[in-house]
Amino acid sequence: MNADPRRLARVLGHGFEREELLERALTHRSAGPLNNERLEFLGDALIGFLMAEVLLERFPQADEGALSRMRASLVNRESLAELARGMQLGDYLRLGAGELRTGGQGRDSILADALEAVLGAVFLDAGFAATRTLVLRLFAPRLEQTIAIQAAKDPKTRLQEWLQSRKRPLPEYLVLDIGGDQHAQTFTVSCLLPDADVRTQGEGSSRRRAEQAAAQAMLERIEDV
Amino acid sequence: MNADPRRLARVLGHGFEREELLERALTHRSAGPLNNERLEFLGDALIGFLMAEVLLERFPQADEGALSRMRASLVNRESLAELARGMQLGDYLRLGAGELRTGGQGRDSILADALEAVLGAVFLDAGFAATRTLVLRLFAPRLEQTIAIQAAKDPKTRLQEWLQSRKRPLPEYLVLDIGGDQHAQTFTVSCLLPDADVRTQGEGSSRRRAEQAAAQAMLERIEDV
Repeated sequence: MNADPRRLARVLGHGFEREELLERALTHRSAGPLNNERLEFLGDALIGFLMAEVLLERFPQADEGALSRMRASLVNRESLAELARGMQLGDYLRLGAGELRTGGQGRDSILADALEAVLGAVFLDAGFAATRTLVLRLFAPRLEQTIAIQAAKDPKTRLQEWLQSRKRPLPEYLVLDIGGDQHAQTFTVSCLLPDADVRTQGEGSSRRRAEQAAAQAMLERIEDV
Repeated sequence: MNADPRRLARVLGHGFEREELLERALTHRSAGPLNNERLEFLGDALIGFLMAEVLLERFPQADEGALSRMRASLVNRESLAELARGMQLGDYLRLGAGELRTGGQGRDSILADALEAVLGAVFLDAGFAATRTLVLRLFAPRLEQTIAIQAAKDPKTRLQEWLQSRKRPLPEYLVLDIGGDQHAQTFTVSCLLPDADVRTQGEGSSRRRAEQAAAQAMLERIEDV
């Protein structure tokens, strides 16, 4: 016996006006012709768009390639199935006898498709703004993880990735000056983009730190809208 | 010299609050690092979602596969480039010297990407509802064409395609009765889905018409939300 879809609605934080949409979203094609495939088509496109929007906002420096890669790592069969498991979505699914027997309610593909369908159903029921809020809340932990991974990369690495993704030559770092006492030296390093003749400088208590500062200055110079 | 982007805004029917977004959308990557690639990423996802939504609504019987195929025929490099040409988008583009020399402003890929970027820019400038209205207006003629093509297919063809897309066996038509006078005969035909044991009937003044009526009845029986 399936769990009551209204409990799922509470977990989602969205009470459906049209409960039949939620029921449809929870019906796998193995259970009959009135199933969730059309809603899945809508939900898939909706999630893709909302993630594009939020990544664009959160990563003002990332280029199209990096945004695409981040979206693919945020939204895929495994990540959607994991989110679905977090809300016990499998307990609410309607499956045909064959799928039930072989454990379809625990299968990644079925769970991922059903979650897409549920979000498609929320959109049809409540419109864009409400669905956007729900989707962003749902994906927030994964998004924060992605942001943390990006932030953990040091400026030299990020600059290098940014240039490589554009098939541009690597930056050149040059020590311009070493000042201060022997035990409190200050390094001044320049960072040069050889194909653009753009230069920045950085200072630090070691050559490595000065290079990172120069790379950070370069990243800020080339920052995208 | 490029045409004034504000003229393009008038053609679009959207005056930009943030004109720099439109300028960015019109800047090809050959013109520099502050180009339209990020906006194109957003616009591409946005159009994909809006077309999913409108097709779902306009084709209540189409399954996921049919919706996908219709979207691919509505939104692709050629169709986007054609829409872009309709608004003389090429006249507003900022291209690098090399692209200008080789006629980049007339190239399908550059025009299609720029249109996606412009629609992404409208979304950032004005939000979902305004962009949705604009995109649906822009695609309306192509959408009506798609609808006309679908409607022109007779019920037997549509039923056959629907079944084939689900890898199901073809329907069987059987003449049940021929009544009426010799010059005003009425045929009664049944349509059977052999794998589901579902039957409908149709009548008509010829065998072919009766079969079409029976197929139409079957389409209505299996109609999706």
